[in-house]
Amino acid sequence: MATIKDVARLAGVSVATVSRVINHSPKASENSRLSVLSAMEQLQYHPNANARALAQQSSETLGLVVGDVSDPFFGAMVKAVEQVAYNTGNFLLIGNGYHNAEKERQAIEQLIRHRCGALVVHAKKLPDEELAGLMAQIPGMVLINRILPGFEARCVALDDHYGAWLATRHLIQAGHQRIAVICSNHQISDAHDRLQGYLDALKEHNIPVDDRLIAYGEPDEIGGERAMIDLLGHGKTFTAVTCYNDPMAAGALSVLSDNSIEVPQQMSLIGFDDVLISRYLRPRLTTVRYPVVTMANQAAELALALANNQPLPETTHMFSPTLVRRHSVMAPPATAPQPVQAQAGEDR
Amino acid sequence: MATIKDVARLAGVSVATVSRVINHSPKASENSRLSVLSAMEQLQYHPNANARALAQQSSETLGLVVGDVSDPFFGAMVKAVEQVAYNTGNFLLIGNGYHNAEKERQAIEQLIRHRCGALVVHAKKLPDEELAGLMAQIPGMVLINRILPGFEARCVALDDHYGAWLATRHLIQAGHQRIAVICSNHQISDAHDRLQGYLDALKEHNIPVDDRLIAYGEPDEIGGERAMIDLLGHGKTFTAVTCYNDPMAAGALSVLSDNSIEVPQQMSLIGFDDVLISRYLRPRLTTVRYPVVTMANQAAELALALANNQPLPETTHMFSPTLVRRHSVMAPPATAPQPVQAQAGEDR
Repeated sequence: MATIKDVARLAGVSVATVSRVINHSPKASENSRLSVLSAMEQLQYHPNANARALAQQSSETLGLVVGDVSDPFFGAMVKAVEQVAYNTGNFLLIGNGYHNAEKERQAIEQLIRHRCGALVVHAKKLPDEELAGLMAQIPGMVLINRILPGFEARCVALDDHYGAWLATRHLIQAGHQRIAVICSNHQISDAHDRLQGYLDALKEHNIPVDDRLIAYGEPDEIGGERAMIDLLGHGKTFTAVTCYNDPMAAGALSVLSDNSIEVPQQMSLIGFDDVLISRYLRPRLTTVRYPVVTMANQAAELALALANNQPLPETTHMFSPTLVRRHSVMAPPATAPQPVQAQAGEDR
Repeated sequence: MATIKDVARLAGVSVATVSRVINHSPKASENSRLSVLSAMEQLQYHPNANARALAQQSSETLGLVVGDVSDPFFGAMVKAVEQVAYNTGNFLLIGNGYHNAEKERQAIEQLIRHRCGALVVHAKKLPDEELAGLMAQIPGMVLINRILPGFEARCVALDDHYGAWLATRHLIQAGHQRIAVICSNHQISDAHDRLQGYLDALKEHNIPVDDRLIAYGEPDEIGGERAMIDLLGHGKTFTAVTCYNDPMAAGALSVLSDNSIEVPQQMSLIGFDDVLISRYLRPRLTTVRYPVVTMANQAAELALALANNQPLPETTHMFSPTLVRRHSVMAPPATAPQPVQAQAGEDR
């Protein structure tokens, strides 16, 4: 592969001049610029981003850590961050943390080693103190989907509790009393907050909690299938289900359909996130909208501004989810199971 | 941020010794290794991957160019390549080409600039000559989903023509004669080869082609909706539809459902790729399986082996798709539209 010296030789200029041209320095004359560019093309020379990054102590690279890029929720996040990177002439470097502290740590460390000045990090498992240490070291690091005490201005998050409360209240307002919940089995704040939102909505409406109506699974289609099978295993004693996310709702819907339980006539179902799949399920899924594109855009812009000591963009740090009404929720059937008071009393 | 000099000072060793420890050189004594590691920890020093890459003229980074990471097909590809990277101690750098020659070029160039020794590239729009030039320059570059003449051994691809032929023949064997096709409007070989597979299957079975049964759209859910609306606009003169991919089939299914056309009783539908969504549509989608995980694994292993001058792994360069029979295909209804011979004659 051609080196910068080869380019300098062919262009008849010094290595320093080649470097100036590559780095768009105003000190390079138009004449030498043209001969350097022509030599670079002839030699198929690619300026070494590593060398530039070393010299500048930062690269044109925006780093992003997500949970799992093959999850459609994170796919949307990546696309949104990439759009900002592309528009600002940066390149995107992506790492997966898989909701695992060790992998989250490795992904962040690798991005730091690649001298990403700007970093958008979705890390749910690293402890607060460790993240705080990294935030203190890397001024262009921003957290998405987590509020870190002391660094609130560099965090962009969603009110998960409110979203789940909204979904559960929607079911209660439609007339449901026996409402099951399908939760994520990941030990992350999203899972905890969404379950708590469900519990608080029940409490507010004086509906007792029934542990048999709480099921857990991996936060994907297969996890949703398994959780729905668990719920039905205790008997169809509920008329509505609120799900941790849309893929789990898709899995749950598939089990209901296999068991000839019609949604929404016999069972109401509600998702969370509003990923694309929710519009292509039948019935179309009523869900809670996670404004992931807006949030990811803001996080990326904030990280770039911080990394470049620019004025900070206007950022909403805590976003509110909204309800998206489609066709998977209606009033419970007339032949609904016993009202909740009668049954739940035995269990608590 | 701490530098290598700070670490050397605190550890009481030379910069060269710190460098040896970071690079796991056997020349570093156990004593100096311990004091360097302790100094690194105290100073929260992160070895500079750019500096290492410069010194070694390659990085621990595997580069991947995909079409669009938010497309579930590419999501699966990214995850498979990432798994190989992770298992081999490499870090994954991802760029999107968006089926646009300029963006494909930029993504590849950026990865080369970051000195990715191993590169897996999904690029459909760059001309053969340009790709050949890059392949000649970068020994660890491998193409996925494209066969480049002269570099067949460094390509991993799928027989798209055969997959579409298989899908169309399946519909013909179920008794269909009026078969529509929903195509991608991207000018890439996949789109061309899949349409050709459909045309060849019709020809083999002496079924004339009717241009009104060929519709195009963006290769996603919304494109599938629009294409199905176009097809129905000419009247429901067909009993089956074969689609470019599963998301388009999901969109088509949604329009059929909105128009109370039951699948498969009144209309058979077949997808392509077998992405996760196909199992959660109702009816479950019959489709053609693209073994993207296996192919992406092989491409990644091949790229790493080539980059490191290791013995080449056994690689299948041209994969064959297979039919996945689910519930969206059956015989045409008894009251099917006129046989094709009567109608198509007018049009050609």
